[in-house]
Amino acid sequence: MNLKILIKANRSYRRFNQSKKIEQKMLTDWIDLARLSASARNQQSLKYYISNSEPLNSDIFSCLAWAGYLKDWDGPKEGEQPSAYIVMLNDKQIATNHFCDEGIAAQSILLGAVENNFGGCIIAAINKPKLSKIIELPNHLEILLVIALGEPIEKVIVEKMQDNDYKYWRDENNVHHVPKRSLQDITINIP
Amino acid sequence: MNLKILIKANRSYRRFNQSKKIEQKMLTDWIDLARLSASARNQQSLKYYISNSEPLNSDIFSCLAWAGYLKDWDGPKEGEQPSAYIVMLNDKQIATNHFCDEGIAAQSILLGAVENNFGGCIIAAINKPKLSKIIELPNHLEILLVIALGEPIEKVIVEKMQDNDYKYWRDENNVHHVPKRSLQDITINIP
Repeated sequence: MNLKILIKANRSYRRFNQSKKIEQKMLTDWIDLARLSASARNQQSLKYYISNSEPLNSDIFSCLAWAGYLKDWDGPKEGEQPSAYIVMLNDKQIATNHFCDEGIAAQSILLGAVENNFGGCIIAAINKPKLSKIIELPNHLEILLVIALGEPIEKVIVEKMQDNDYKYWRDENNVHHVPKRSLQDITINIP
Repeated sequence: MNLKILIKANRSYRRFNQSKKIEQKMLTDWIDLARLSASARNQQSLKYYISNSEPLNSDIFSCLAWAGYLKDWDGPKEGEQPSAYIVMLNDKQIATNHFCDEGIAAQSILLGAVENNFGGCIIAAINKPKLSKIIELPNHLEILLVIALGEPIEKVIVEKMQDNDYKYWRDENNVHHVPKRSLQDITINIP
């Protein structure tokens, strides 16, 4: 395995083979990758809540909004929904500021998923009060993100961004297109 | 290569073989990994400034504070300093909120470095006004982090956290010890 191949394969997947289950051991293996990753001031205030079965999966699904730019799509239909979720939490009793740990941990988890032929999507558009109630969170645990996980069934193509338009889009064959800035555009002091 | 091995090898390194240079092509290869990683709303507002030579390296070094918990250590001495830096910026003309992109990108860059037998450390304790002046940043580019990079020459050991004490420490042989919470401590709904 080469890291670049893994990162290229790690697209934000939003449609899954819902019947393909993810065992708890696999989910905690991915969380272990986040655990072993860097943490600001080494505080390690992030915690994780996992779900890989019904009716909890459906309850979590009901708290999420999907793919803001796809206005005529309400999210994956029954049969294409995630088969597991990792809810990322911040333990405010440990630290109120988790700095950039959230992104580091999410990236480690998703790369782990892709290495095991799964994939997922980081979701920040969450009905947090509703989800807190569903998973019975104590007050000191704050929801940061939900990582939706499953066996991807959609094709995602990365392409060169045109005219600064960064909105992803789907074509008539349901292929998901993701415009990316070029290396020259983002590295400010190379010719 | 296995992701877990790579993540385990990706420690926060703060002492380097300063004479081991990092070519610009290698630095931009690592930035390319960040470029190909997920971005909230696909906005891709992060930009990068690279340095791999003197006197710029020394100028950047003068803006950084190292290892907050090691009170009797002012950072790596001459000969053990980073041989390159990637300054991560947010382009406020694209987005004022970069969500968790910062951590995702930093993790991709550092995993790339480790795969190539380099390593580094995410530094957030930065004299930003001074650094902005040194690298002549326009106002719309805001400094988020500095990733210090080089060939690591220090031994870092991950160990089980005791009594909730998360401060890393160095022993008499200059081995760096990093206490980590257990998987059970951070996963709130497994037995």
